[in-house]
Amino acid sequence: MSSGFEVATRARVQMVDVTPEVRAALRASGVVDGLCVVFVPHTTAAVTIQENSDPDVQRDVVAALARMVPDDPPGAGYRHLEGNSPAHVKASLLGNSVAVPVEGGELALGTWQGIYLFELDGPRSRRVRVSIVSG
Amino acid sequence: MSSGFEVATRARVQMVDVTPEVRAALRASGVVDGLCVVFVPHTTAAVTIQENSDPDVQRDVVAALARMVPDDPPGAGYRHLEGNSPAHVKASLLGNSVAVPVEGGELALGTWQGIYLFELDGPRSRRVRVSIVSG
Amino acid sequence: MSSGFEVATRARVQMVDVTPEVRAALRASGVVDGLCVVFVPHTTAAVTIQENSDPDVQRDVVAALARMVPDDPPGAGYRHLEGNSPAHVKASLLGNSVAVPVEGGELALGTWQGIYLFELDGPRSRRVRVSIVSG
Repeated sequence: MSSGFEVATRARVQMVDVTPEVRAALRASGVVDGLCVVFVPHTTAAVTIQENSDPDVQRDVVAALARMVPDDPPGAGYRHLEGNSPAHVKASLLGNSVAVPVEGGELALGTWQGIYLFELDGPRSRRVRVSIVSG
Repeated sequence: MSSGFEVATRARVQMVDVTPEVRAALRASGVVDGLCVVFVPHTTAAVTIQENSDPDVQRDVVAALARMVPDDPPGAGYRHLEGNSPAHVKASLLGNSVAVPVEGGELALGTWQGIYLFELDGPRSRRVRVSIVSG
Repeated sequence: MSSGFEVATRARVQMVDVTPEVRAALRASGVVDGLCVVFVPHTTAAVTIQENSDPDVQRDVVAALARMVPDDPPGAGYRHLEGNSPAHVKASLLGNSVAVPVEGGELALGTWQGIYLFELDGPRSRRVRVSIVSG
């Protein structure tokens, strides 16, 4: 069973906690045991699981990605003319989806895990799909 | 239901659009609602979802990965004697599979999304598995 | 159907082959055709598929990740006070789960593929969940 929701991001690069929306989709599905996949139909956004406690973790992840995939690397200009190639690269590194086991009708997330839409070329309106299969 | 196909890659590092083959596998399965996983049984190739419009995006992704995981980083030689350690590293960064929701008998890909076999140590003949489960 | 096991890691950063434990979980499930997802409920550990033959591949992957996400990058100190931000970053790059097709009651892994728990902030006791759905 699939459903979806939209997220309005507010910065160029931003992690948005979508765990509540995913939990709501799981409850609506009625699935007790199986697998929940969260997917973004975009190529300059991603989905990742990360710590939901200290917001500095998100800042550090965003900053580390910017160091790894800099906006204008010396001596090697990007060719894609839209100017958002770093966002495309980061999307492939982070991935378009996460899969979380469903156990007892709940997401089997660890205590500190949250599911994040990772905006890489915002601000924009982004769609998120939640696909749930029974075990 | 699982099926598969082969891809003959033609360069050391190359992104090959396999969306048509995955769509054909989905149609053959008859699954209307569920999840489609595309998997490579290799450790020097990967699968990623990326923009299918401007080929410069693929060139930028390939070039950015080469900067992040250089063939011969100064002061830190690779130990693996086959000489393809960068390919192994990139495979773990990109991942061996992607998961795409199936809705109404179709892949729920975004308008600009394509599914790519990512050759990292070619040219070679590569196998791709498509695994489809009902929702 | 979900099950799990624990792994006691023995180093700060370490790849631990958990393929035998995942195979045992698959056999216990009785599933013949479908999908097997291996998931870690942690944000400073990951799961990846990598070569299981030459241990130097694992050393090269660990070393390459340390170069990409250094412990103390010049001019850009991490904010998260626990001191394990690089582990969080690497976890998002590698991913919290892998998905492997199940065919004929077996994991459809390639000859050289193993499933690895990737400890990024050890040594610790880590939990691994195995979620199997029928095709």
